[in-house]
Amino acid sequence: MKDMTVTHNTLPLFETLRFAVDDGIATITLYRPEKMNAFNPQMADELIAAFDAVDADDNVRAVIVTGDGRAFCAGADLSSGGATFDYETRYSTARDTVKRDNGGRVTLRIFRCLKPVIAAVNGAAVGIGATMQLPMDIRMASTDARFGFVFTRRGITPEAASSWFLPRAVGISTALEWCYSGRVFGAQEALDRGLVRSLHAPEDLLPAAYAIAREIADSAAPVSIALTRQMIWRMAGAPHPMEAHQLDSRAIQSRGKSADAKEGIASFFDKRPARFPNRVSDEMPDFFDWRGEPDFE
Amino acid sequence: MKDMTVTHNTLPLFETLRFAVDDGIATITLYRPEKMNAFNPQMADELIAAFDAVDADDNVRAVIVTGDGRAFCAGADLSSGGATFDYETRYSTARDTVKRDNGGRVTLRIFRCLKPVIAAVNGAAVGIGATMQLPMDIRMASTDARFGFVFTRRGITPEAASSWFLPRAVGISTALEWCYSGRVFGAQEALDRGLVRSLHAPEDLLPAAYAIAREIADSAAPVSIALTRQMIWRMAGAPHPMEAHQLDSRAIQSRGKSADAKEGIASFFDKRPARFPNRVSDEMPDFFDWRGEPDFE
Amino acid sequence: MKDMTVTHNTLPLFETLRFAVDDGIATITLYRPEKMNAFNPQMADELIAAFDAVDADDNVRAVIVTGDGRAFCAGADLSSGGATFDYETRYSTARDTVKRDNGGRVTLRIFRCLKPVIAAVNGAAVGIGATMQLPMDIRMASTDARFGFVFTRRGITPEAASSWFLPRAVGISTALEWCYSGRVFGAQEALDRGLVRSLHAPEDLLPAAYAIAREIADSAAPVSIALTRQMIWRMAGAPHPMEAHQLDSRAIQSRGKSADAKEGIASFFDKRPARFPNRVSDEMPDFFDWRGEPDFE
Repeated sequence: MKDMTVTHNTLPLFETLRFAVDDGIATITLYRPEKMNAFNPQMADELIAAFDAVDADDNVRAVIVTGDGRAFCAGADLSSGGATFDYETRYSTARDTVKRDNGGRVTLRIFRCLKPVIAAVNGAAVGIGATMQLPMDIRMASTDARFGFVFTRRGITPEAASSWFLPRAVGISTALEWCYSGRVFGAQEALDRGLVRSLHAPEDLLPAAYAIAREIADSAAPVSIALTRQMIWRMAGAPHPMEAHQLDSRAIQSRGKSADAKEGIASFFDKRPARFPNRVSDEMPDFFDWRGEPDFE
Repeated sequence: MKDMTVTHNTLPLFETLRFAVDDGIATITLYRPEKMNAFNPQMADELIAAFDAVDADDNVRAVIVTGDGRAFCAGADLSSGGATFDYETRYSTARDTVKRDNGGRVTLRIFRCLKPVIAAVNGAAVGIGATMQLPMDIRMASTDARFGFVFTRRGITPEAASSWFLPRAVGISTALEWCYSGRVFGAQEALDRGLVRSLHAPEDLLPAAYAIAREIADSAAPVSIALTRQMIWRMAGAPHPMEAHQLDSRAIQSRGKSADAKEGIASFFDKRPARFPNRVSDEMPDFFDWRGEPDFE
Repeated sequence: MKDMTVTHNTLPLFETLRFAVDDGIATITLYRPEKMNAFNPQMADELIAAFDAVDADDNVRAVIVTGDGRAFCAGADLSSGGATFDYETRYSTARDTVKRDNGGRVTLRIFRCLKPVIAAVNGAAVGIGATMQLPMDIRMASTDARFGFVFTRRGITPEAASSWFLPRAVGISTALEWCYSGRVFGAQEALDRGLVRSLHAPEDLLPAAYAIAREIADSAAPVSIALTRQMIWRMAGAPHPMEAHQLDSRAIQSRGKSADAKEGIASFFDKRPARFPNRVSDEMPDFFDWRGEPDFE
């Protein structure tokens, strides 16, 4: 894919993340290694900005999220001590209005992403370090990874919209069992219960993630991928399949006459790789608000 | 079950299917063997008519869907080349209104079926050949079967309301992974990820499917089966269990006083097979529109 | 936990149940051993009262439900014969209005419970004996347990809102297969299909259930547990994760400033067990109707 050059010149500058795009694949690395990549409000803002950059750049065909050093993300930065979760004290504007949970701002942004998102969980993933993975499409883990939904042990509650995401990933019973006990568990349990799709030796984790990203980047039409991602995540919560039928009838009608579809069929008959011309940045069909979400009330 | 005679005289005539009813079990065989049973608009219409026939015939207690020859269904017939999915060009009436996806017309019809539906996947099941199975209740496969959700490789999107059905069958992550890559995978992966319930040697597939159909046909009350099918499929998408409680309170109230319930309890005490008298054709309770669906808008 | 004394003096008196609270853990034992703990209207009322007692008693940190003797619950008491499910004949008030299914009254009460609920399935669990477990959070079984969703063999339909609960526990296909055939199956199949989380030798079942209850009771904040339970069960049916984000933003805002959160973080830094001061009885945040449910219409 010669047209997917590295676009370092347009990369945003981050302090809590490292962000790189190489050969069509963006890598977001949580980067506070001295703090085990603990999550703080700046990291929330930078993650959202990173996903904005991902969606805006047609060169990016897939995203991998991982952590620098030994941890993936050790959870909320507790350096504010007992005031850590006391938003009313920490944020004056929160006294009068409901303050949006920073974890949920991030996971809803990932939910709306138009590119495939792969979590490569290299180490400890606790609290928001565990829940931020849930809207990522494919979760892979190192055998060194461990996970903990520790909220009830801290006197708070699951956040980052994980009460929606977690039962859909692992079932209601496992979601409750993990959130009730708050215990930290290993990679094998995460695999056995369906939280991650596969385990890898630490040195094999990123190569395995890149191999999956590579296959998607090389074979699939980007606009088709963006539509597929939004259709499946949104219809996963829809009451009746008629809603999906209405959506995909329009999607097929829109894409069926596209240059992408003609190339997809022609390349299939020619037994050659496809070169899809349509772009996510300006050729998403407009019958659905792919980038929108309900208001926060 | 002596009263379930073969009803060849009432069978509709199809060109793309074979349809037979024997001893209470209908078999729908996709039948375009020279085209690997590729799906076309005629097959969509005939599948819908076949399920109409299934629902209308009280002799039919269960349905098996399979493919003739080596394939189950190799996907959309691409003999129209690049115009295959271009509904606006192919259908003049589609210029002004949204054309319903033919795959979705079929899967929503199966969704509304009042009899158990078993997929016996004998070979390649690609594109609509894979997605048409998703509203079938029980999916069994030959070890020769293979599957592919290939839409993004053709420049189009998942159809047949599969964005609703697929994450409910295999989880959101697997649904996305399969739809992103578009790769064709084997029967073992389909089993491991939960797409099919069991694998069988090719010659054992249909006998295994008939054995399950036989058990249902011989032991269960037909009206109870029809209600159960609609209750579970529809409540699978309902936001709150109160909706199910309202539905099943009425269902129990209706069926609890029925001749079927008296026979079910009497046969249980007598330790003999039940002979349930009530019929789906004219004794479904009327507090819910079992045969209806939301309007397509 | 010295402050969780046995509170025998406040225990309600039941005939169809035994109810005990010991060291923070309530045990509800279905107790009609001469009838294999068959379910009847009195048992429904008493189960509801028992869960009311559980929610009202801050000493109760978790609940275990099991059966006395060889059975868990053999299903509806059929001693009324063919009139068992004929509510119109049995209940004069049912002639004009819809009679709520007793099974559903129980499962919706368990759905609203504010404490973790563990099913310890010691033996046969058939009909309502199987469906009453579905709103329990964690299901564990003896190797002697067996299960049956036998409704279609009795000429009735699945009840207790199981059309909502069962597909969420084991998937749509398994739910339908079990309800269609109505056959009774063993503990291993229940484990393989995900109905129960683990199997235990008969003598190890209750100790294993108490060990899980103990870990929750000793480590988690009770208000956090109550909120977590309601958030996960209710968001499991929500169409969009924004609903969860709205709920958990408020929950974090409410709990983040609480004495529980300060204790949770302090005990984490001190590497000591937490002693959470907040109580479920009077300190649940009021931005959501945690104890309510939609009207039955």
